[in-house]
Amino acid sequence: MSFLHGIAASNGIAIAKAYRLVEPDFSFEQKKVDSAEDEIARFQAALYTAKGELDQIRIRADKELGADKAAIFEAHLLVLSDPELISPIEDKIKTEKVNAEHALKETADMFVSMFESMDNEYMKERAADIRDVTKRVLAHLLGIQIPNPSMVTEEVIIVAEDLTPSDTAQLNREFVKGFTTDIGGRTSHSAIMARSMEIPAVVGTKTATKEITNGDLVVVDGIKGEVHINPTPEMLEEYKQQQEAYAKQKEEWAKLVNEKTVTADGHHVELAANIGTPKDLKGVVENGGEAVGLYRTEFLYMDRDQLPTEEEQFTAYKAVLEGMGGKPVVVRTLDIGGDKELPYLNLPKEMNPFLGYRAIRLCLEEQEIFRTQLRALLRASVYGNLKIMFPMIATLDEFRQAKAILEEEKQKLQTEGVQLAEKIELGIMVEIPSTAVIADQFAKEVDFFSIGTNDLIQYTMAADRMNQQVSYLYQPYNPSILRLVKMVIDAAHKEGKWAGMCGEMAGDETAIPILIGLGLDEFSMSATSILKARSIIKDLSKSDMETLASKVIEMGTTEEVVEAVNAAISL
Amino acid sequence: MSFLHGIAASNGIAIAKAYRLVEPDFSFEQKKVDSAEDEIARFQAALYTAKGELDQIRIRADKELGADKAAIFEAHLLVLSDPELISPIEDKIKTEKVNAEHALKETADMFVSMFESMDNEYMKERAADIRDVTKRVLAHLLGIQIPNPSMVTEEVIIVAEDLTPSDTAQLNREFVKGFTTDIGGRTSHSAIMARSMEIPAVVGTKTATKEITNGDLVVVDGIKGEVHINPTPEMLEEYKQQQEAYAKQKEEWAKLVNEKTVTADGHHVELAANIGTPKDLKGVVENGGEAVGLYRTEFLYMDRDQLPTEEEQFTAYKAVLEGMGGKPVVVRTLDIGGDKELPYLNLPKEMNPFLGYRAIRLCLEEQEIFRTQLRALLRASVYGNLKIMFPMIATLDEFRQAKAILEEEKQKLQTEGVQLAEKIELGIMVEIPSTAVIADQFAKEVDFFSIGTNDLIQYTMAADRMNQQVSYLYQPYNPSILRLVKMVIDAAHKEGKWAGMCGEMAGDETAIPILIGLGLDEFSMSATSILKARSIIKDLSKSDMETLASKVIEMGTTEEVVEAVNAAISL
Repeated sequence: MSFLHGIAASNGIAIAKAYRLVEPDFSFEQKKVDSAEDEIARFQAALYTAKGELDQIRIRADKELGADKAAIFEAHLLVLSDPELISPIEDKIKTEKVNAEHALKETADMFVSMFESMDNEYMKERAADIRDVTKRVLAHLLGIQIPNPSMVTEEVIIVAEDLTPSDTAQLNREFVKGFTTDIGGRTSHSAIMARSMEIPAVVGTKTATKEITNGDLVVVDGIKGEVHINPTPEMLEEYKQQQEAYAKQKEEWAKLVNEKTVTADGHHVELAANIGTPKDLKGVVENGGEAVGLYRTEFLYMDRDQLPTEEEQFTAYKAVLEGMGGKPVVVRTLDIGGDKELPYLNLPKEMNPFLGYRAIRLCLEEQEIFRTQLRALLRASVYGNLKIMFPMIATLDEFRQAKAILEEEKQKLQTEGVQLAEKIELGIMVEIPSTAVIADQFAKEVDFFSIGTNDLIQYTMAADRMNQQVSYLYQPYNPSILRLVKMVIDAAHKEGKWAGMCGEMAGDETAIPILIGLGLDEFSMSATSILKARSIIKDLSKSDMETLASKVIEMGTTEEVVEAVNAAISL
Repeated sequence: MSFLHGIAASNGIAIAKAYRLVEPDFSFEQKKVDSAEDEIARFQAALYTAKGELDQIRIRADKELGADKAAIFEAHLLVLSDPELISPIEDKIKTEKVNAEHALKETADMFVSMFESMDNEYMKERAADIRDVTKRVLAHLLGIQIPNPSMVTEEVIIVAEDLTPSDTAQLNREFVKGFTTDIGGRTSHSAIMARSMEIPAVVGTKTATKEITNGDLVVVDGIKGEVHINPTPEMLEEYKQQQEAYAKQKEEWAKLVNEKTVTADGHHVELAANIGTPKDLKGVVENGGEAVGLYRTEFLYMDRDQLPTEEEQFTAYKAVLEGMGGKPVVVRTLDIGGDKELPYLNLPKEMNPFLGYRAIRLCLEEQEIFRTQLRALLRASVYGNLKIMFPMIATLDEFRQAKAILEEEKQKLQTEGVQLAEKIELGIMVEIPSTAVIADQFAKEVDFFSIGTNDLIQYTMAADRMNQQVSYLYQPYNPSILRLVKMVIDAAHKEGKWAGMCGEMAGDETAIPILIGLGLDEFSMSATSILKARSIIKDLSKSDMETLASKVIEMGTTEEVVEAVNAAISL
């Protein structure tokens, strides 16, 4: 047995076999072969196996993901039957007497670069197809396995360097019991994903992919941030007991599912959930979410080849609004860029993507993308309690521009006779320091604020939250952050508006007492954190927390703040 | 004639011939040759010319840059005479009947990757030597010219995509009359360099390297941000007149060189200069600088293969302190990382280097580098009025740690009997929002603040100041920035400390009235901006500017602020 330490990214304990989601090593050497016939036979065998595999995937995709996803694999099968690709490979083996790997790679590379150089979307997609399928044949030639998480049929723990949004989209949620990754922190995508899927995760272990082999029995302890590989029977037993205890604690919390969130001295706040897709609504309802505080619409744009249509978006927004049955749903408009790329938009590579062309900056420039989303949102507005917010607002001008575009689309729809909700609250994410500092100016023009702490902290501390080397600077309780949060809440209240928070901090045990003291109105978090947060808040006195808050914002360091909170809570 | 528009990065007008500092295109095709003998002869000829050129450079380097720089070229000459490199190339031409370009490239690449794969610094340097010199031979084979700015012997305007610090270090200042670049903004290195060299520059033209050919007559208008290529005689005449007018205005300003900087109502502020090397002192004295407000020590670490020794640093610091004859010299400790790389430190590649491992973050980790610098500074302290400041401080902890290290080195030196200045003021750069927001906490522990606006603005607005796509967010007059500046100044004054500014904003015509109103004590800028700033300040009333400042910090947008300043000044 062995042991890894990482960052506890999603609560709970998972025990299952490891499934490595790691790009295999495809390197090989060019070699002369004695018999070209034998080598061609070897190539034919690999081709045959690859085709069979693709056919299986196609059938499964058709059943589970729909005909359009299955069509991709049909196209792949066609490529492998195309004599224009296959004959040159066999010719090369015959005339040059080289190994099949080399002949395959050279020929495929030639076609790929030929197709890619054409200024034609269709041909570029063909290049991607060829790259994909020849990799599969190459894998069989080299005797290595390409991971395919959508084909998993037993309970597994996913082991990966990192999980991209498109990796997670392919996972079969039924069988994935936990994650562990080499890199990432509490605010990385894999961590957020794990919390939304309500499965335990430990990220940033540095060496998980090195230490864990396919089929190892793995315990992911998402409470302590530990991963145990092939544990002893005693340890396994202990963990099974902890798993049960955790399940019991969850049962306790579950009793709060239909209660309001009220402090010991009678102050009500709203506990909302962050979601990524309509699928996540189930968790929100089960966990007693009083609202959706952040609907991350970028998932609609990911893992596909082109922008979603207005109709596709409308369907998703309507589903979420109806699913919440009249409870508030705060939809964030497209926040793409930074660590979230959309390959089909062909955005320029940037030296500092977190300080670059993203979110509202992109939407104000690429207005058709933005307008399509706004139209879909406006049309869906009659199906529930919609609130819209813009991400990455840095200046009042940006907000005014975005609002003007929204108003234009509203007018157009009204002229067309489309029915819209009478009142749609319009707010902004406060995740850039400039906006927090002049929140009083913004408060005159917005309906609400939602503080996005993940970004606000990284910009305020000038430290990339994905960069391990500066992770000590990701300090949610730093007095500077708390002061900015206070500025935003005070500014909102002064104008009779509300202030929420949709960053990780909103569900954090140490932060909650301070946030209650600062007067935060809405806390939006992973659905799985809601019941625990409610149980914490029930025991707090708002007036005591006000005293605590006024003390901690005059402190100098994070350590002093944490100490003060611990002292106040243990009273 | 044609015309380019860019960013005015350094004042004045330059007229000279273009010198392109652009990496040529070394691509070629592999070809069969009819006669191997002819091809070898062609190779020998290129080799011969390359050697002659290198020998010339060596002689010139020996005369102008010293024996150690010349030794590099000696090593290069040795490589080109080494039969272990030359014979395989000739053999390859003979046996494979390929063109010399291909034979040279293949052979050189083989040696380079062999040497690079060895875990040995010496061998890695040999790999770099081989890459360098074979490129020169290849250039002669292809009939293309490698730019060599150190060999320039007539007045030129440098045309480049961008200028790196090591490019600028190679420039012969005597002959370089101006710069123009494709990329970069007012705070890029090339811009800062141009101001420190007191030569006009227009950066961010996007297409300078495409439009301008070697030898074109170029006008760089660093006042309006325009570049004219092969102007008409009339335009040339007009620009010559403007050049004269600008020279006359400078003469007017020059009369202020020995005056104090005092507002119309008698308030004194200090005008200091930003410098990069002891060489820049000449400009500080000539422009009437009252202090050095920022000595960027990283130039000591650049354009070399290893860290500078304590002795080398001591010599530089002593020269600057003595050169300022007892006037204050604020030295910033090493600010490396971000856009300033030191290849020999082998720092990890980062996704967002501006939010990464740099400056004090690196110094607290790599303590030997930091301690060496501090020792050199402490030893030099007796030669003038030294103040030390730490860059990129985000938390009070970081400051305390850095200060503790300084105290340790102080004690060690005192134990060794080394004499140190009695009082060395210790301050910090305020360039991270968190530090500005809790400046009141810092003010209790530091002796002074120096606001670094270039970074403070980019972090506060979450916009990379080098990224053209978000350049509209680089807003020095945004009310959020002005409020942060106010917080810092007020915090300093409350504790009886002083606050300066060493970012671009300190020398900016629109910012100066506001900064006077906010009570800024020290303005540090490019030496060439000092006299103009002094003439502006002489005409301002501090009390009027206080009224202006209190108005603008309650505004919502940059545009309103600019309008208010213009209205106030024109009164």
